Amino acid sequence: MSYVLRCINCGRTFSPDEVEYTCPYCGDRKGTLEVVYDFENIKASREEFSPEADMFQFRKLLPLRKGFYKPPLKVGGTPLYEFPSVAEKLGISRFLVKYDGTNPTASYKDRASAMAIAKAVEKGYEVIYAASTGNAASSLAGLTAPTHLKSVIFVPASAPKPKLLQILVYGAILVPIDASYDVAFDLSMEIGREMGWYSRNSAINPYLLEGKKTGAMEIAVQTDWELPDYVFVGVGDGTVVSSLFKGFYDMWKVGLVDRVPKIVGVQAEGADFVKRVFDKGEPFEPEDGEAKSVADSIAVGKPRDVIKACKYVKRSGGFFISVTDEEILDAQLELASDTGVFAEPAGAAPYAGLKKAIREGRVERGASVAIVVTGSGLKDPRSIESHFDITPLSPEKESIMEYLRKEL
Amino acid sequence: MSYVLRCINCGRTFSPDEVEYTCPYCGDRKGTLEVVYDFENIKASREEFSPEADMFQFRKLLPLRKGFYKPPLKVGGTPLYEFPSVAEKLGISRFLVKYDGTNPTASYKDRASAMAIAKAVEKGYEVIYAASTGNAASSLAGLTAPTHLKSVIFVPASAPKPKLLQILVYGAILVPIDASYDVAFDLSMEIGREMGWYSRNSAINPYLLEGKKTGAMEIAVQTDWELPDYVFVGVGDGTVVSSLFKGFYDMWKVGLVDRVPKIVGVQAEGADFVKRVFDKGEPFEPEDGEAKSVADSIAVGKPRDVIKACKYVKRSGGFFISVTDEEILDAQLELASDTGVFAEPAGAAPYAGLKKAIREGRVERGASVAIVVTGSGLKDPRSIESHFDITPLSPEKESIMEYLRKEL
Repeated sequence: MSYVLRCINCGRTFSPDEVEYTCPYCGDRKGTLEVVYDFENIKASREEFSPEADMFQFRKLLPLRKGFYKPPLKVGGTPLYEFPSVAEKLGISRFLVKYDGTNPTASYKDRASAMAIAKAVEKGYEVIYAASTGNAASSLAGLTAPTHLKSVIFVPASAPKPKLLQILVYGAILVPIDASYDVAFDLSMEIGREMGWYSRNSAINPYLLEGKKTGAMEIAVQTDWELPDYVFVGVGDGTVVSSLFKGFYDMWKVGLVDRVPKIVGVQAEGADFVKRVFDKGEPFEPEDGEAKSVADSIAVGKPRDVIKACKYVKRSGGFFISVTDEEILDAQLELASDTGVFAEPAGAAPYAGLKKAIREGRVERGASVAIVVTGSGLKDPRSIESHFDITPLSPEKESIMEYLRKEL
Repeated sequence: MSYVLRCINCGRTFSPDEVEYTCPYCGDRKGTLEVVYDFENIKASREEFSPEADMFQFRKLLPLRKGFYKPPLKVGGTPLYEFPSVAEKLGISRFLVKYDGTNPTASYKDRASAMAIAKAVEKGYEVIYAASTGNAASSLAGLTAPTHLKSVIFVPASAPKPKLLQILVYGAILVPIDASYDVAFDLSMEIGREMGWYSRNSAINPYLLEGKKTGAMEIAVQTDWELPDYVFVGVGDGTVVSSLFKGFYDMWKVGLVDRVPKIVGVQAEGADFVKRVFDKGEPFEPEDGEAKSVADSIAVGKPRDVIKACKYVKRSGGFFISVTDEEILDAQLELASDTGVFAEPAGAAPYAGLKKAIREGRVERGASVAIVVTGSGLKDPRSIESHFDITPLSPEKESIMEYLRKEL
């Protein structure tokens, strides 16, 4: 596999041996790197791929050597569902749901963790670290569990308890810091460098996005190459939304697909710092603030991959849109009861965004749309707790039947 | 598909049109029915099956008509993992984990719910009901969500809150009864009959076991037909353990496999009523009591499928074993940190049982063993909460590094 690393800001290219994470000229914040393949020498045909195989079926378009280390748990090959009745309700032609809750630790982040593990083994590291609001962390912890690697996870101590328990149960070393995600992130970077560990912080490690892009590639295979017009996804740091563009783009570069869908990034109103940068236009200048949203997985105040996200979404012809916490929670309930897909709030955000985009005429009637549900609602059902009042009934047949006749 | 229903107690056979649930002579408790196929007229070859397809790939051995209704969400095709280092630690030749946490609602019960939905549509029902400590309920609720069917769920109000929220989020009608599971079960049966609804109570509906048996069939396909010597699984009502026997048995009857593995049922010490009946020997007489275990999914005081479970396990040459709550929780942590598979307590019980069986010499050195992890630990991580003390660290680099050097 032949590839170079190119700075998203200045365009300089580096060989993989030359740099590890970000552009030495532009720094961590602006200078995240893209993996650019020697596309002309990659021959791939549609028949090679199957709808249910794991993410490493795309190894021709991944930065991995022959004989790379593949982590033991199956990542990717998650279902793509179509719900015609929801499409009809929304007035669009197709409504597709890419559901990554069936990954080993029930989130999209497993795609990046699997790649991090493969690269760490290639590079000879023994410890991988990450800072995360939860999903990336439990993902790294879970996927390293059956390997010889150790994982160290920096989290804001305020992260949802069920997510912290998930990290601990896998035997990872947890560093719960009494500070925000952003402070935990910066501390993890300093400490990780000093200790000589491998970083699984998506926005600086260019290979993680390559793992994540396999979600887009699966959509191409699973739609039998009939790509949707739009792909909606929640946006925190900006890496997943970037990865969706990159997955379709790399497939386009080798002739597997004939276009890239419009990528739409959905942010929570209380943490819409990528959208703000995008809406101001080029040159994209990072802008930070305090993040506040019920969708903890995308409540990011200092998005690490903002420039890449803006550039890629623009190239796709897509846009960013923000939704309120109430819209997110409503979308979560509606999606679960209409489709049986129980998303975590961040995973339901794209459905809220789609509904708003249709209302505002930004998605036309008859369009085909996929949303990416990046995490399972089972991980932290507390978000929906306030919606439901569970009143015990006494064990008497007649009164229960009366209650049921009213409910049905 | 041609089949009859045969009483597990008296052996009388009935046509599918003649009875709906249980033997009219032996009653609900003793007279659960088996689905017996016209094996001689079923031609199946190993090449027809694939390791990642959904459970309905086994339709030749399922009680379904041509053109049956297949529920929209993908059930089955869950991973079978092998962990050689765990096998080595345990002194066995192979350690396999069938992990059903990747089903749509993260439990084995989705296999039964998918079958219930297919049968309800065939029979023209509009409402399906169930009584459940949790998993069967959220499974039915989730899988009916994208269909036209309604689901009504009877639960003991004391069931874990996250599991009740899972039922509600899918839009099912919840009936939380201020009583035990057993009382909720009996009430559901009375009310369901009176209302004319279809029952998804596994132990009385003979078709649900047929859905569940696909887990065993997948093990056969996924081991490339090299069956393990033993298959361990947690036991509550006794239906899943029975279904494992049945899956291998039906495959054996049509010549797909050459034997049935020894099936081992693992119960919590505080709810070991199937084991007690089994150990007393034939004729198996149901024996009930009060159930108490941290493993709520198998904490059953009045096991509904006890006779079938005992007969089938005996025919397989297997046995029942019980483990303490402490052994279950230890197994849960060990399994997660060794394999990355985070099981709910009931799903970790078979691992605890396997360790005990090896200690006691009931499983010989060098044997190959599969355990079935029937549910994801993500659904209710509270069980492990007391094991971990999460103390926030102040955001200072030096003190954090000192802490890390001690932990590594």
